[in-house]
Amino acid sequence: MTDTLTSSGVRARPVAPGGNRRGVGIGELLLDGGFWGRLQETNARATLQHCADWMERLGWLANFDRVADSTVGTDDTPRPGWQFSDSEVYKLLEAMAWELGRTGDPVVGALWTKLVGRVSAAQDDDGYLNTCYGHAGQPARYSDLSTGHELYCTGHLLQAAVARVRTHGEDDLVEVARRAADQVCREFGPDGRDGLCGHPEIELGLAELGRALDEPRYTEQARLFVERRGRGTLAPIALLSPAYFQDDVPVREADVWRGHAVRALYLAAGAVDVAVDTGDDELRAAVERQWTRSVERRTYLTGGMGSRHQDEGFGDDWELPPDRAYCETCAGIASVMVSWRLLLASDDVRYADLIERTFFNVVATSPRADGRAFFYANPLQQREQGAPMQPDAVNPRAEGGARAPWFDVSCCPTNVARTLASWHTYAAFVEGLAEPGGPAGSAPVVTLAQYASGDLRLAVGDGELALRVDTTYPASGTVRVVVVEAPSQPVTLRLRVPHWADGATLAAPSGGPSGEGTGARRPVDPGWVDVPGALAAGDVVVLELPVGPRLTWPDPRVDAARGTAAVERGPLVLCLESVDLPAGVALEEVRIDTAAEVRPHGDGAIVAARTLPLPDGGSGRPPFAAGQPVPGPSDGAAELLEVPLVPYHRWAERGPSTMRVFVPTASPDRPAPDVTSHPEHPSKETR
Amino acid sequence: MTDTLTSSGVRARPVAPGGNRRGVGIGELLLDGGFWGRLQETNARATLQHCADWMERLGWLANFDRVADSTVGTDDTPRPGWQFSDSEVYKLLEAMAWELGRTGDPVVGALWTKLVGRVSAAQDDDGYLNTCYGHAGQPARYSDLSTGHELYCTGHLLQAAVARVRTHGEDDLVEVARRAADQVCREFGPDGRDGLCGHPEIELGLAELGRALDEPRYTEQARLFVERRGRGTLAPIALLSPAYFQDDVPVREADVWRGHAVRALYLAAGAVDVAVDTGDDELRAAVERQWTRSVERRTYLTGGMGSRHQDEGFGDDWELPPDRAYCETCAGIASVMVSWRLLLASDDVRYADLIERTFFNVVATSPRADGRAFFYANPLQQREQGAPMQPDAVNPRAEGGARAPWFDVSCCPTNVARTLASWHTYAAFVEGLAEPGGPAGSAPVVTLAQYASGDLRLAVGDGELALRVDTTYPASGTVRVVVVEAPSQPVTLRLRVPHWADGATLAAPSGGPSGEGTGARRPVDPGWVDVPGALAAGDVVVLELPVGPRLTWPDPRVDAARGTAAVERGPLVLCLESVDLPAGVALEEVRIDTAAEVRPHGDGAIVAARTLPLPDGGSGRPPFAAGQPVPGPSDGAAELLEVPLVPYHRWAERGPSTMRVFVPTASPDRPAPDVTSHPEHPSKETR
Repeated sequence: MTDTLTSSGVRARPVAPGGNRRGVGIGELLLDGGFWGRLQETNARATLQHCADWMERLGWLANFDRVADSTVGTDDTPRPGWQFSDSEVYKLLEAMAWELGRTGDPVVGALWTKLVGRVSAAQDDDGYLNTCYGHAGQPARYSDLSTGHELYCTGHLLQAAVARVRTHGEDDLVEVARRAADQVCREFGPDGRDGLCGHPEIELGLAELGRALDEPRYTEQARLFVERRGRGTLAPIALLSPAYFQDDVPVREADVWRGHAVRALYLAAGAVDVAVDTGDDELRAAVERQWTRSVERRTYLTGGMGSRHQDEGFGDDWELPPDRAYCETCAGIASVMVSWRLLLASDDVRYADLIERTFFNVVATSPRADGRAFFYANPLQQREQGAPMQPDAVNPRAEGGARAPWFDVSCCPTNVARTLASWHTYAAFVEGLAEPGGPAGSAPVVTLAQYASGDLRLAVGDGELALRVDTTYPASGTVRVVVVEAPSQPVTLRLRVPHWADGATLAAPSGGPSGEGTGARRPVDPGWVDVPGALAAGDVVVLELPVGPRLTWPDPRVDAARGTAAVERGPLVLCLESVDLPAGVALEEVRIDTAAEVRPHGDGAIVAARTLPLPDGGSGRPPFAAGQPVPGPSDGAAELLEVPLVPYHRWAERGPSTMRVFVPTASPDRPAPDVTSHPEHPSKETR
Repeated sequence: MTDTLTSSGVRARPVAPGGNRRGVGIGELLLDGGFWGRLQETNARATLQHCADWMERLGWLANFDRVADSTVGTDDTPRPGWQFSDSEVYKLLEAMAWELGRTGDPVVGALWTKLVGRVSAAQDDDGYLNTCYGHAGQPARYSDLSTGHELYCTGHLLQAAVARVRTHGEDDLVEVARRAADQVCREFGPDGRDGLCGHPEIELGLAELGRALDEPRYTEQARLFVERRGRGTLAPIALLSPAYFQDDVPVREADVWRGHAVRALYLAAGAVDVAVDTGDDELRAAVERQWTRSVERRTYLTGGMGSRHQDEGFGDDWELPPDRAYCETCAGIASVMVSWRLLLASDDVRYADLIERTFFNVVATSPRADGRAFFYANPLQQREQGAPMQPDAVNPRAEGGARAPWFDVSCCPTNVARTLASWHTYAAFVEGLAEPGGPAGSAPVVTLAQYASGDLRLAVGDGELALRVDTTYPASGTVRVVVVEAPSQPVTLRLRVPHWADGATLAAPSGGPSGEGTGARRPVDPGWVDVPGALAAGDVVVLELPVGPRLTWPDPRVDAARGTAAVERGPLVLCLESVDLPAGVALEEVRIDTAAEVRPHGDGAIVAARTLPLPDGGSGRPPFAAGQPVPGPSDGAAELLEVPLVPYHRWAERGPSTMRVFVPTASPDRPAPDVTSHPEHPSKETR
C-alpha cells in the first residue's frame, strides 16, 4: 500500500514497518523560538535562498537546463561544479520540502515549483538523471563508479522525494524520483550490473523511498548495494585505500567505522534501514556494534566524527586531536541520521544522548548567526587565527577559523538546511501510535527525546494529545510540559534525562489532582523516565536538569588531550576563545585550576586559571629538552585569572581568534581526588 | 674556470665561493664499519641495484627508451609511472656517481654506463629531456608548471651531474646536464617565459651546477626562479592553497617554512646556494630566520619535519602530533641539505646538531636492515599494528608500521641511496683549505662535525693531514682521533660537542709530548671545541661524550605530547615497542616513572613503569567523562615494570608492533622538582 497523506502533512519521519516506533511528523510538533526554533527560522528566512542563489550564480542549476535543452556538449564551455554538484540541488529541495511541510511559505513554494521544473526537465526518457554523465560530450553513464557520484546524487534525489511524500504526498518530484529509482533498479538489479557507488547514499535513498512508497523493490535494491560493499570491487583511488569508501570489509562483518566519515555514516544509516525493513537482525547488530566502538573511541566531545583531514576520515581508536579534528558538519548530520534510526529500532537512550550532543555542538556550530556562512570542518582547537574567509567568494573547504558563504565542495550548507528545516521531527517519537488516521495501539508511549519550546499535537484514537513545552533549554534546565488536551485512551509520556544530568528531578501530578506543583519533586536517574499515571488536561510536568558547568576529562588513551580538561554546561561544550582573555595573556599560557570553582556566566562559565611561564625561543633546537621540564604553575606562583568560556557552537562570531575546548590544567591528570560523586557540581570540589 | 678533478676524485661537496669552508671530498674521508659505514655498505651492496631493478620492472627506465626510439605515442600503451618518475632515475644516478667516486666498484660502473646511455639517448636536440612531456601523444612542454614537475626532474638531473663532476669530472652525463640547463636558461631566462616549477628543485640543481662548472648563468637562472616564487603565479591545485608550493610569500619575506615540506626545504637549500654565491646576505638571513622558527616550533624530536599527511606538509607552530607525524624521509634528507649549506655559510654549530639528530633518527630509520625496504613516513607513534606491506609489490606511500620495497610515489628509496652513498661528505669540513692541489690558507681548520669510524686524509700545503677516527659511536661516547700524519703547516683540529652532551670531556696532548693519555681530561662545553696546539703524528685526542640515557620533555605548547616524556641516548631517540612489553601489558597502559632510574640497556634503555587501569568500554559515549578523571598510578598502586626502550631507527624490524616515542608519565608535567641540573643523568633523580 502506498500511504497517502492527510492534508495536514503530518506523515512521520522514518517508520520501521517491523517496529512500532515512529518520529513525529512535520506538523505534529511546532517550535516557537528557543534555541532550535530560532535556528530553524534563520534557516527558513536566509539559508534556503542563500543556497539557491549560490547555485544559480555558479551555474549548478543551469547544468540541469543545459541537459534539458540539449545545449550541453555543443560548445567548449566546461560544466561548472564538481561531478556531485547535482546533489546540492537535491539537498536544497529536501530542505524546501520540509520547510513547505512546516510552514507552507508561498515564497518557498514558488521557488520549489521552479526548481522541480528545471530538475524534471533534465531527466532522460528512461529515468536517468544526472548533469555530468551520459550526454553529448560527457563521460558515459556509470563509467566511473568509484568517483563519479552518480548513484550518490540519485540517492539525494530520492531523499528529497521522501521528504515530499512525508510532508505533502506524491507529486512531480516524487514521480521523477520514482522513475530514477526504477532506472537504478533496472541497471543495478540482480540481473544487471554488479556495481556500487564510491559514495554511499543511494542505499539510504532507496530504502527510505521504498518505505515511503511501500515499494519493496527499492528496499531490495538498497540491500543489494549494502551487500556488495566491502568486497574490494571499486576501482582504487590513487593514494587512498579501499577503506576510504568502506570497500574493505563487508558491512555485516565490520567492527568499527573507518575511512571517509560521511561515506561510512551514510552507509550505516542505509544499512539500518535495510536491516529494519528486512528483519535482518545480524546486519542491525553489526551497525550497533560499529556505533558503540566508534562512539567510544573515535568520537569527539562535541559528537564530531572524523579525525583526519587527509581523507576526511575516521582515525585509529583514540586518535582524537583537537587541533586537526575534521569533524565535518556533514558527518555530524550523518551521525544523527544513524543514531536516529538506531534509536527508533532499539529504544536505547544512548542514541538520543549522542544526537543531542551532536546537534548542539556540531550542527549548531556550522551556520553563522545570520544563516549565510558555514563551517565545513569543526576543529576543537584553533592554533592560529584563521585567514578571513572571502565574504562573497567560493572558499576552500576545510579552513578553520571563519565561516564561509560557500565552498568549492559545498556539501555542508545544504545539509545544514535540510537538517534544520526538519529538526523538530527528531525531537520526539511515538510508540504504539499508527500513522495519522490509523488505529492506536494498546499502550501508546510519547517520548520527548530533545527539548525545545513548542507545541506537540498527536491524534490518539478518537482524541488528541496536545502538549505545550515551555523551556529556554539549554540556557535553563527547566522543562515544563503542560498537558493541554488529553485523549480518553491512556498515553504514557516519557522524558529523557541526559546521561550528564546527575541530580535531575521530576515533578509530576502522579495520579493526584492535576495542576502544577501537585507532584513532589523526585530525583530521576539519567535515561528514560516515565511520567506516572494517566495524563489529564491541565497536568503540568516539570523536569529540572542540572545545567551548571561541569569539568570533563579525557580518557587517558586520548593522547592528544592528556593533561587537559574541558568544561560542559548541560548539552553544550564550552570553549576558551582568545578574544576573551585579558590583554597580554596568550591562549597557550592559560592553565585552568581544576580545584577552583567553575561558575556559570551567561550561557558559558568562568574558570580560575593561572599563566604558565613559557620557554623562550632561540635554542635552535626542536621543542623538546632534557632537564627543562616545565612544571604546572604552583598555587601561588602566578596571578589567578578569571577566564570566561563560551559555548563552542558560537565561536568565531566575534572576529578572528584562537580557541581551545580542552584547556591544559595546572596539574594535569591530577584532579582533586574526591572528584567522583558530583560531576554536575564542580564548584563544590575541593582538593 | 671549470675545476678539473684530480684522479683521486676528492672534489668536495658544495663550496661557497664567497666563503672558505668546504665539505670533505668523496675520497678524503673513508668510513670503515660503524653505524654509518655499515649503512653505506648495505646501500652499495643492495639498495642501488634494488632501485634499478624496480625502475626497470615498472618501466620507468623504458620510458627513456621509448622517447629515444620515438615509439612513444605510437600505440595506446599508457606511460608507466607518475609524471615525476624520471627524477628517481636521476637520484639513482646521483647515488651511483657518489658510490663510484667512493669505491669505483666496476659493477656499479657498468650499470652507470648503461643508464647514462639510455638517459642521454632520450634528450631532444635542443637539450630538453623529459619522458612525460613534449613528444608524440604527450602534453606540450611546460604546459603544466604547477604539477608537471618537468623542471623538478631537470633539477635532479643536474644534481646527478654535480655528483659526477665532484667525484670524477666532466663526462657524458655532465654534458647532458649542461645542455638541459642551457635549454632551461633559454626557455625561462630573463627574456623567456616568466614561469617557475610547482616543485622546487631546479633552483638547487642550477645553483650547484653553476658552482661546479663555474657557470654564473646557471646561478643567475636559479636566482630568477627563487625570486619568482611567492607571488601567487602558479596555477592553483584544487583544495590546496598557494602555500603548498610556497607560492604565497616571497622567499626573502617569509618567516617560517610552510606547505609541502620537501618543496619548502629544497627551495630553502637552493635559496642558500643562491644567497651565498651571489653575496645576498638578506636572502641568507631570511632562510636562517625560517630555519630557526621552523626548527624551534615545527620540528619533531627526531629532527623530522612535516606534521600533516594531507599535504605532506608543515603544520602550525607547536602542531607536532606523534601519531600523525608525517616526517617524510625525503623531508629529513632535504632538511640535512639546508642545514649543511647554512653550516658551511655560517659555521654555527646548531646546524650540525640538527644534521646529526636527523641523520640518526630520520634518515637511518627509513631503510630496513637489508637495504631493500623503506619507510616513507616516520611517525613517532604507531597506534595500531600496521598492515604488513606486500613484500614484492608497489605499496601506498604513507602507511606506517612496515617498511616497503617500493612505493607508488617512490621518492624516498633513491633519496636514501644518494644520501647514504655520500654520507661521509657531510661528516667533516675544512676552512682555509683550497681545493686539492691549490694553496692552503693561512690558518686551516679541520672540523669533525659527525663521528664515525674511518680515515681522513687531506692535502695541506706540501704535506698531508691524516687522521684515524676510532669509535663505535653512538654505541659508545668515546671518539678517539689519532694523528697519523701531520703537515708542516699548523692545522687546527676542531670537534663538535653535541648540544645534549653536558659533561663531555676532552683529553688532548695540549702541546706537551705527543701520545695517548698525555693530556689531562678536561670538561668541554657543547659547541665547537678546538684541540689545542699543533698537531703531530702520534697525537691521540679522546673525546668522551655522555651517551647514557636521558629523559626529554616536550615544550608545554606541544599539546600532543603533554604529560609525556621521551628517552634519548646520545644522538638516538629511543622508543617503546609493544613487542618488548610483558605479556598482558598493553602499550597504552604504560606510564613511566620519571622519578626512577633510567638505565642503559644494550643500545637502548630500561625505564621503570607502572600500568594505569583503563576505563572499561560500554558507556556508549565519547571518551570524555565528567567525574571520571583517571589519576596517574600512585607509587604503590600498580606493579612496577621494567620496560626496555630501543632505538627508534630500528623499530618495526621485529614484526608488527605498536610503538611510541613519547610515553605518558606516571605524574605528567610533574617531574621531580630537582630535575634541572643533570639532564644526562636521570638515574640520579629523586623526588
